[in-house]
Amino acid sequence: MNLCDFINTTRPELEDKLKELVLNSLTKDLPELNDMLCHHFGWEKGVISPGIQGKRMRPMLVFLCTETAGGCWRDVMLPATAVEILHNFSLIHDDIQDNSPTRRGKPAIWAKWGVPQAINAGDFLFALANKVIIDTNHKTSSQIALKNAQLLNETCLSLTRGQYLDISFETSNQISIESYFEMIKGKTAALIACCAELGAIAAGTLIDQQKLFHRFGNSLGLAFQVWDDWLGIWGNYEHTGKSVESDLVAGKKVLPVIYALEKKGDFARRWSKGPISHGEVPEIAEMLVKEGAQKYTEKRALNLLDEALLILDQLVVNQDAGRVLKELARSFVNREN
Amino acid sequence: MNLCDFINTTRPELEDKLKELVLNSLTKDLPELNDMLCHHFGWEKGVISPGIQGKRMRPMLVFLCTETAGGCWRDVMLPATAVEILHNFSLIHDDIQDNSPTRRGKPAIWAKWGVPQAINAGDFLFALANKVIIDTNHKTSSQIALKNAQLLNETCLSLTRGQYLDISFETSNQISIESYFEMIKGKTAALIACCAELGAIAAGTLIDQQKLFHRFGNSLGLAFQVWDDWLGIWGNYEHTGKSVESDLVAGKKVLPVIYALEKKGDFARRWSKGPISHGEVPEIAEMLVKEGAQKYTEKRALNLLDEALLILDQLVVNQDAGRVLKELARSFVNREN
Repeated sequence: MNLCDFINTTRPELEDKLKELVLNSLTKDLPELNDMLCHHFGWEKGVISPGIQGKRMRPMLVFLCTETAGGCWRDVMLPATAVEILHNFSLIHDDIQDNSPTRRGKPAIWAKWGVPQAINAGDFLFALANKVIIDTNHKTSSQIALKNAQLLNETCLSLTRGQYLDISFETSNQISIESYFEMIKGKTAALIACCAELGAIAAGTLIDQQKLFHRFGNSLGLAFQVWDDWLGIWGNYEHTGKSVESDLVAGKKVLPVIYALEKKGDFARRWSKGPISHGEVPEIAEMLVKEGAQKYTEKRALNLLDEALLILDQLVVNQDAGRVLKELARSFVNREN
Repeated sequence: MNLCDFINTTRPELEDKLKELVLNSLTKDLPELNDMLCHHFGWEKGVISPGIQGKRMRPMLVFLCTETAGGCWRDVMLPATAVEILHNFSLIHDDIQDNSPTRRGKPAIWAKWGVPQAINAGDFLFALANKVIIDTNHKTSSQIALKNAQLLNETCLSLTRGQYLDISFETSNQISIESYFEMIKGKTAALIACCAELGAIAAGTLIDQQKLFHRFGNSLGLAFQVWDDWLGIWGNYEHTGKSVESDLVAGKKVLPVIYALEKKGDFARRWSKGPISHGEVPEIAEMLVKEGAQKYTEKRALNLLDEALLILDQLVVNQDAGRVLKELARSFVNREN
């Protein structure tokens, strides 16, 4: 079995469960909230492209971690949907906070329905994620349900801490690479680490193993975000669904930018002069390449991925699943394919 | 013992616990988030007026419901702080959604730190409320902690459903009194019903009693919101801390307005012509009185309060506490004193 087979096997059930949990929690007097969520999750009538629905990588990670640790993916369906719901809450709020009008090639909720309803749609998903994780209670012991919920809530706190740092970076002139990594640890890696640990908990592993799965997820999550930053400058619009120049034009302090600002070269001089226009993007992206920012970013991403894979080597119980999990982990750092 | 004694006895411990839970969950690299939360909760240095901190009525309700059902207020400290934290999450997001720049006589978080950080500060409190309720686990059984968490999450879902309706009312021309009550049931009453039920659960009451406490809280919560609508038009700025004319000037569809719109009289004609200016407020508030909207609102609030008190009569185990709880309930509908 390879990753593609695994996704084809699990994805339809996951999508059905996700849709059931999200849409059945709405009462009939909330038609527009239903529309917003169908729009956001890619469940409009006639939609068949999974690209529009997002890749559901986080639930896949929960499934594969539990399988790798000797468990069964179906037993971890509720935690997997809970993290996907939580992830989508954070996307909806993030788009408002970043003033980003597009998500997966379509208008963001706030751009279509306004900021007040978008904040509320995010809050709704946040509440639902918590409800779903508590409801794991019906499929497992109270102790495990509580442990899952505790983990999810610690993760939410880390997410908001990371988000605070990310927003405050916008108005800060000097950001160190160290504080960048602190920020993405909360903003991105915490939820991916949570996915890995939820999988390990469900498989009944010992606490030491659970913590190692968490560390695996943390390194993988950092690698993922570093690579996302790479894509934000050098990625291909068609594959990522987001505008290739957005990060430079938006003035986002992504890793290549922070690295090049520390170099105090041509890029730093141009950056200090004010916003980068659409037309300047190719030239400035090339400037970053010349100053070593692209190579540095690639190296950091690959080192973090290696770190994750090394930890994973200690954890594999089911060899087949372990191989597929490694394939998934590698895809986090080469998401153009 | 009267309500004032009870508040004086419990409030300092509550405030300490609340402050400890909120501020200890912040790491040192988040100084501005700390400032935002101290500002919002009224914990700036030198602040001594409890008015600035809000009344903490919801935790008081949790305490008094548990005491009335035969429990002890200290045993319900964590659920009480969790609801207060959740309530404050909803206030922070609500102020953004309503475009309301003032909260308790001070700038709202969004007005001082911007919308992105305000959304995130709300999300942080939402996550924290969930963490605190799960942590009741350490003070009670896993079963009860899960039950508390389930209740809190159902409440959050109701809150967001009510908030959706509230926001959609802004652009709707015809709102029935029935749909108004559906909206406030989610937006306001759900959390107050949750407070009452959390108190009952902690006191070890049977499930039927818990449901009756929930119904008591629901009626009380509806009464509270109806009275809040009254205050939004005829209230006194100094006592409520919000601008007396804001609801009419903001064009909010509060109960007196919905009632008078149904009458299709002078008020409805004026309303249809566009926004009400600051200067017109006294005249238009008087118009509402003449058309019976003030009397109607008062009557609905008092009937709902009576409904709540009737349910409560079936539930009192500790007579002393029951009397104080009734005093608290009555204060929900006459909040100028």
